[in-house]
Amino acid sequence: MQSPVAERGPQSFDRVLSSMCTEPHPAARRAAERFLTTNPGDPATYTAIAELEHDAVAGLATVTGLTDAVDAETPTALAAHGYVTSGGTESNLQAVRSARDRAETAATATHDPVVVAPESAHFSFHKAASVLGVELRTVPTDDDGRADVDAAAAALDDDAVLLVGVAGTTEYGRVDPIPALADLAVDAGVPLHVDAAWGGFHLPFSGHDWGFDVPGVATVTVDPHKVGRAAVPAGGLLAREREALDALAIDTPYLETASQASLTGTRSGAGVASAAAALDHLWRDGYRREYERAMDLANWLADELAGRGLGVVDPELPLVAFDLPAATFEAVRERGWRLSRTGAGEARVVVMPHVSRESLSAFLADLDDLL
Amino acid sequence: MQSPVAERGPQSFDRVLSSMCTEPHPAARRAAERFLTTNPGDPATYTAIAELEHDAVAGLATVTGLTDAVDAETPTALAAHGYVTSGGTESNLQAVRSARDRAETAATATHDPVVVAPESAHFSFHKAASVLGVELRTVPTDDDGRADVDAAAAALDDDAVLLVGVAGTTEYGRVDPIPALADLAVDAGVPLHVDAAWGGFHLPFSGHDWGFDVPGVATVTVDPHKVGRAAVPAGGLLAREREALDALAIDTPYLETASQASLTGTRSGAGVASAAAALDHLWRDGYRREYERAMDLANWLADELAGRGLGVVDPELPLVAFDLPAATFEAVRERGWRLSRTGAGEARVVVMPHVSRESLSAFLADLDDLL
Repeated sequence: MQSPVAERGPQSFDRVLSSMCTEPHPAARRAAERFLTTNPGDPATYTAIAELEHDAVAGLATVTGLTDAVDAETPTALAAHGYVTSGGTESNLQAVRSARDRAETAATATHDPVVVAPESAHFSFHKAASVLGVELRTVPTDDDGRADVDAAAAALDDDAVLLVGVAGTTEYGRVDPIPALADLAVDAGVPLHVDAAWGGFHLPFSGHDWGFDVPGVATVTVDPHKVGRAAVPAGGLLAREREALDALAIDTPYLETASQASLTGTRSGAGVASAAAALDHLWRDGYRREYERAMDLANWLADELAGRGLGVVDPELPLVAFDLPAATFEAVRERGWRLSRTGAGEARVVVMPHVSRESLSAFLADLDDLL
Repeated sequence: MQSPVAERGPQSFDRVLSSMCTEPHPAARRAAERFLTTNPGDPATYTAIAELEHDAVAGLATVTGLTDAVDAETPTALAAHGYVTSGGTESNLQAVRSARDRAETAATATHDPVVVAPESAHFSFHKAASVLGVELRTVPTDDDGRADVDAAAAALDDDAVLLVGVAGTTEYGRVDPIPALADLAVDAGVPLHVDAAWGGFHLPFSGHDWGFDVPGVATVTVDPHKVGRAAVPAGGLLAREREALDALAIDTPYLETASQASLTGTRSGAGVASAAAALDHLWRDGYRREYERAMDLANWLADELAGRGLGVVDPELPLVAFDLPAATFEAVRERGWRLSRTGAGEARVVVMPHVSRESLSAFLADLDDLL
């Protein structure tokens, strides 16, 4: 007997201000439905989706500047430099795993390999450290919420195998000084991994230096199923050197292909196809227009909140953190708004494609009621 | 510009004899489409899909005998004993990770923790060992393709943290002697993990002892997106003790819930909803009928192949391995049949729900042409 919940379907997106996921682009949804029954984890059996994954990776290579960095190659050749993951967590975990396994620094029996990351790094790095048996050494952020470069330099010792920079932090949408961190990484002889899971589809338009055009950037996480408007699950991991992905490959005796670099086995054709379709339809102008719309809206929201006397963190990307009394936060949630909090207790709104001026006006109206 | 591949869609399932995935049940497909935009990795934001995951886990608990083993609890309480994973690879990896982290045997600096598994175990255990920094110690199978119990006993030393049994091996569809392996595990003080990723939806009807009704079975992998007829991605991991899942939990400061046991972060609502829908529609009679249909068809196919003078491995579950000259194998693939090979070089047909008497007759007709 079908659960009434299943019949009703999920809640609408109107009041979801907390999520870094959004409604897929219509073409992405259609592609997801069309390729629902395929498995890109078995590319010799499922040949159509294998081709679409090459297209998606080629698209992500363009977004992140990889195509230029490795001298514009064909989708097939670029495919060796990345794949569509299950999401940012897998991308980040695999980047750490690759660095761990390639490190020439032999960790002694008493020291685990060390990953240096800003304290603003996503909790997936804590998960990765636990899973992979590495030590996560976090360094403070400065008053603007960006990685403290001097502290990162001090943390990079002989046990370090990877430095992480974040391009669009989860809590404040901050972009670390990637070129400065890249210089540190090069000096220390470690790769720099850039986590642009959420920021990656805004950053081509925001003026930041963040991707493979920065020497020293070795791997990048960028998720189509966030601002990219693909369907879940569709994350992305790209590597400047194909050897970084080769390090992840496990022999697969049962499939018709020889090895598998992904963390999961069977994979979602729906996610991969939707990523290819979203990139096809929205790169470059669609994403540029969304960046401009979302940034304008974030700035407007920040002004409106400041005008109401609330402390606001000036948005660097389309994410607004602001002070809100705990009781008001709870009351706002009771009115159906999905809002999240930073570790420091601020409320946080992520201006995703489904977040409109209308919904934010309604949110402000409810705030006005409650404050 | 839409890729012509994307417009054409994937190849049909008619000639896919190699895959352990299949077409989702229609209700599962509808549920997948309805919940495409939800993220069960953020259950406090996406409350409807969180509820459906409880339903799916409760369903899997029934399939595997967990419900009886822990005294039939509510879906909410059972939810602490399992979750819908991205697939069998994640389920197996998480089972190893949980055992690794809970083991009281302190591995010395010179010894990695050891996982003992039959050589028939899926390559995901090799991936898990590489990712998790454990040693995979494989033991031979006997002439019938099942784990050699005496060899497993000899392999269980003080460094062992987990014993693995397979209920429905990837290559031959064999079911290990789970009760005997469970006794070994109990004696050695380690958990037994049963990989029933593919077999789990046949085994409730086949007469084998394989699930939580066997004392000593600690964790089970069972994948809705295989014989369960859910959409990819939908695997399952169940644990007798909720502490086994608690060991996987990482604190999540940004989400509205406190911690996350899954390997991935953002997760597919489509997969979870489809698992709930498939179980709702097909347990118990639908799955029973499919077991009987597929087993009859596998036995018929085995007879037909033997009648043509080919060496056939008698099917224990709906999977048929048989000798086929390499040239014939390639020629059959060129006619559009997706077939796979065992490590020993046999051809292998998995009788999934989409595999019909008609398609197998056409396959045999092509074989007759070519032999």
